[in-house]
Amino acid sequence: MLRSIATVCLSGTLPDKLESAAAAGFGGVEIFEQDLLSFEGTPAEAGRMAADLGLAVTLFQPFRDFEAMPEPQRSRNLDRAERKFDTMQALGTQMILVCSNTQAATLDDPARAAADLREMAARAARRGLKLGFEALAWGRHTSRWRQAWDIVREADHPALGLILDSFHTLCMGDDLAGLAQAVPPEKLFFVQFADAPRLRMDPLSWSRHHRSFPGQGELEVPGFLREVLAAGYAGPISLEIFNDEFRAAPSRRIARDGLRSLVWLDEQAGLAPLPATPALSGIEFVEFAVDETARAELAAFLAALGFRLAGTHRSKAVQLWRNGGANLVLNAEPDSAAAERFAQLGPTVCALAFRVDDPARLMARAEALRCPTFRERVGEGERRIPAIRAPDGTLVYLVQATGPGDRPIWEDDFLLAPEATAPGALRGIDHVAQALAPGMLDSFVLFYRAVFGLAPDAPWELPDPYGLVRSRAFTGGVADGVEQVRLPLNVSESTRTGTGRFVSALAGAGVHHIAFATADAAAAVQAASQRAAPLLDIPANYYADLAARFGLGEAETAALQAHHLLFDQDAAGHGFRHAYTLPFQDRFFFELAERGVGYEGFGAANAATRMAAQQRGRAR
Amino acid sequence: MLRSIATVCLSGTLPDKLESAAAAGFGGVEIFEQDLLSFEGTPAEAGRMAADLGLAVTLFQPFRDFEAMPEPQRSRNLDRAERKFDTMQALGTQMILVCSNTQAATLDDPARAAADLREMAARAARRGLKLGFEALAWGRHTSRWRQAWDIVREADHPALGLILDSFHTLCMGDDLAGLAQAVPPEKLFFVQFADAPRLRMDPLSWSRHHRSFPGQGELEVPGFLREVLAAGYAGPISLEIFNDEFRAAPSRRIARDGLRSLVWLDEQAGLAPLPATPALSGIEFVEFAVDETARAELAAFLAALGFRLAGTHRSKAVQLWRNGGANLVLNAEPDSAAAERFAQLGPTVCALAFRVDDPARLMARAEALRCPTFRERVGEGERRIPAIRAPDGTLVYLVQATGPGDRPIWEDDFLLAPEATAPGALRGIDHVAQALAPGMLDSFVLFYRAVFGLAPDAPWELPDPYGLVRSRAFTGGVADGVEQVRLPLNVSESTRTGTGRFVSALAGAGVHHIAFATADAAAAVQAASQRAAPLLDIPANYYADLAARFGLGEAETAALQAHHLLFDQDAAGHGFRHAYTLPFQDRFFFELAERGVGYEGFGAANAATRMAAQQRGRAR
Repeated sequence: MLRSIATVCLSGTLPDKLESAAAAGFGGVEIFEQDLLSFEGTPAEAGRMAADLGLAVTLFQPFRDFEAMPEPQRSRNLDRAERKFDTMQALGTQMILVCSNTQAATLDDPARAAADLREMAARAARRGLKLGFEALAWGRHTSRWRQAWDIVREADHPALGLILDSFHTLCMGDDLAGLAQAVPPEKLFFVQFADAPRLRMDPLSWSRHHRSFPGQGELEVPGFLREVLAAGYAGPISLEIFNDEFRAAPSRRIARDGLRSLVWLDEQAGLAPLPATPALSGIEFVEFAVDETARAELAAFLAALGFRLAGTHRSKAVQLWRNGGANLVLNAEPDSAAAERFAQLGPTVCALAFRVDDPARLMARAEALRCPTFRERVGEGERRIPAIRAPDGTLVYLVQATGPGDRPIWEDDFLLAPEATAPGALRGIDHVAQALAPGMLDSFVLFYRAVFGLAPDAPWELPDPYGLVRSRAFTGGVADGVEQVRLPLNVSESTRTGTGRFVSALAGAGVHHIAFATADAAAAVQAASQRAAPLLDIPANYYADLAARFGLGEAETAALQAHHLLFDQDAAGHGFRHAYTLPFQDRFFFELAERGVGYEGFGAANAATRMAAQQRGRAR
Repeated sequence: MLRSIATVCLSGTLPDKLESAAAAGFGGVEIFEQDLLSFEGTPAEAGRMAADLGLAVTLFQPFRDFEAMPEPQRSRNLDRAERKFDTMQALGTQMILVCSNTQAATLDDPARAAADLREMAARAARRGLKLGFEALAWGRHTSRWRQAWDIVREADHPALGLILDSFHTLCMGDDLAGLAQAVPPEKLFFVQFADAPRLRMDPLSWSRHHRSFPGQGELEVPGFLREVLAAGYAGPISLEIFNDEFRAAPSRRIARDGLRSLVWLDEQAGLAPLPATPALSGIEFVEFAVDETARAELAAFLAALGFRLAGTHRSKAVQLWRNGGANLVLNAEPDSAAAERFAQLGPTVCALAFRVDDPARLMARAEALRCPTFRERVGEGERRIPAIRAPDGTLVYLVQATGPGDRPIWEDDFLLAPEATAPGALRGIDHVAQALAPGMLDSFVLFYRAVFGLAPDAPWELPDPYGLVRSRAFTGGVADGVEQVRLPLNVSESTRTGTGRFVSALAGAGVHHIAFATADAAAAVQAASQRAAPLLDIPANYYADLAARFGLGEAETAALQAHHLLFDQDAAGHGFRHAYTLPFQDRFFFELAERGVGYEGFGAANAATRMAAQQRGRAR
């Protein structure tokens, strides 16, 4: 089915929007009228531009405040329609969207609404055009699709049909039950798709600012698509999103996300299967872009956390540092993507590596979802690790999960130090937290959800002393402690929060901290302290409150305090002990995390205290 | 009455918050517990710090999830209370706020709630402490103040009283009717004040993110204060605001706004009168900070708009440029505040001047509202024009309104050119639009509303091609066309919009455009065109739509198009014709506006087209 996107989803001028839609792989566009009004060329030139890009103009929209108006508005509305038909013919589109009237003056008279729409349809038909009627959730008298259908049926004109929009239906708690029985397929003229987070606000504000692409929100959009298909709809699958952040973001990225969301939607609705989501079994390594100097500094920082040089790449200036099951790669290879990143941004994470059951299948899934993929140049005999590019351009490597007897990936590419296999204190990587510019969040949400099948946790709000940080974690994989992949995504509107400052320094997105899993946080902290690791001080007042909140004894509280440990416990009594380092060069930092079996969070209750301590550390 | 503010209103560490509250003139603070938990010193040290700054600790808050819990939580809660009493005694505060329980486990049993609060009160009393019970709007079983009062009355302990919060009451559409009859004054322990915009969202999200200081929102906070005073309340008037932008803004500015809001609130509630708000009769001039080079360039730009050099300051490098009733001052005086601003920001507006009935009275009002005021150095025989500093540091001069026979202010200070009194085409200044960083909006809202008595118009959302611009205009003065003072305030979360880019360049706030009033926009544009003024092109598609929307004839539409004029018309048929210049040095721009009598807007319907044309102009 034809994939289409409304120009209002994208930022920029009409030519920008058309080019971005075409580049992403859409076959059609809805022209949002304001985009045409602001365009310097004629409607015919706009139409040719779309055609030259291979884009059908699937719809012209919206035509507002039409039906059931008293005279003289009724006649003037019909004149207005004729002018818009002129525009449509020049533009080369057949269909216009008429949305239900929101004006105070509109009559509560479905028969009049039907008569008006029939008249407009008759005029459209004379020019070979047609119109679709859509119920806005905040329409004055017509706010449900069933009401709109009653009016369309009553009007009974072949050039008039029904337009559905998943947001308008789902935001009201409504559904499409009975659609296939009530509406003949030829009367289902057009269907628009939008998702949204579940917010408790008025539908107009919700719709105008907080829509999102399917898969980025919480509405049951796949079910909606299944229903329209069951009703025989075969027209375009078209996205219509009003979103403040999309309007401000680069149109190419947003258009790519839009197409990805439709590929995912097709899969979810059972329309077009994709290679299955992966079975994830943890984070194999995190890779840093460094140069020789930064590598030495970071290596010293890591050594204080008990990491040791465990291997050197056979052909590149790349080192493996390891502590137990936690692997960090320090990439100082000149003339590489990592070197380019280092030159731009200084020492930062340039790649994550997930352990997956079948890297080839996941690469095929990612490519079907229009993700750029990456295959590194390799030396002879070295292993080629496939990778997917995340929305910020960093890489996600896909490492074949290995069993107990299997050859680890490291042996092909690295000269391993003899002691590299000696056990360390850390079990692995508990989670990797990314900080994102607010406009990047939805791109990452769709990326992790659609490509990897990760599921979002409940959102959190974390008060930094200089503004709020919103956090949403994505989790997946084997539900057994360290084998999980856990990825908190943090955004902040404020540029003064730790998250906001980091995002500004990284021009949009980056790994802000890495939490290592340990079975004994107190021991891990003690060992780190002995190696003079720079740990974050936690104020005594925090521990006094902790004791009061959880009824902890003096000895237990004192032990936590002595080890700089924060503590959390869920309703079922599962505990979480964690400590933080100071940041490395005012950039990223590390966490030592002891996760009690069953504890699913990240110690969000402690975030305010932690962030205040970090800001204070900075101020010194 | 003691003015108090909760530390949660302000950004930064606890010492920052205390210092800002004291500097603004508060006499007390509520200590929000998380601020203490993040503080490195002991509670006793925090208490001493407050005392040294002259701040009483009016309240310790919040104590959550207390009443009507099953065992063992009930006993643990009482233990927890004892620990908090320890903290309060160290801190040196007598009162703790207990907010109604939101937990699923809490029993729907007011008698149990009363018994629990009585027990906690008895324990508090043993230490000379007391507690106030507050109904949260989203409390599980107690969400209204009358319910909270029933429980407090039932508990009947002298150390237990009621706490009220204007937000929790007013957000539910509730009021304080019956308070004075029901609650004895000695049981009214504490009252918190917060305003908020009227939003249709769940009270929890509304409360946590969108509260504001009294006068910044739309709730009837003055009436709330009147009711609590009528009930005999004589305790602190305390602000408790949760606002994402306050959290991210400098604490000194926000604290100053908070105190200003309380002074205004006292006036509004009839508690303490202030010198009356002014009668405004227009904008006398707008002043630009320039240097010699920028002055020559700006003068050339203005000359193309029909302005002429009308006078030169007697003692400073300051020129008056005039077109009819519109005055612009170009200030290139070295070693002045304007020169400092120019050095930092380039050519920008550094002052506005309002015509007022009584500048001295308004200065007294501004000083009572804690606004910094300014009296310039003047040469001998020159007129001293008093001024108030706006929240962004620019000046608002107060010019004595003159009658037909009065000596104009310009004659004292300027050597006027002989032709200066010759009539020009412009009637005056129609409006001055300021662009603000989002976190600055509430400061300006309170400034214009409290100091000048300006009233906010309905908010608008304006779609720039690269993000949304929110606009809210403040209007006041003689309701006669050009005599009005009209000040649209525009904010944009996106840094890619015209507004966002301008705000970034100006580090927070500035005048983005000035609209001149004309009785004949077509003639004004024609004259400007003949002088080769750089005018903004409007696409032909705009005019085709305009004709369709308003049913304009061909000749009328062609005339608008020929003059680059945008057109708007309100529901009553009052018209607005306006044209824009290109920006001066990618900074501010000008508008020529013909406002039909009765038209109260700013052509918001045309903003999308205008902003797209401006962005396109940039891209060239």
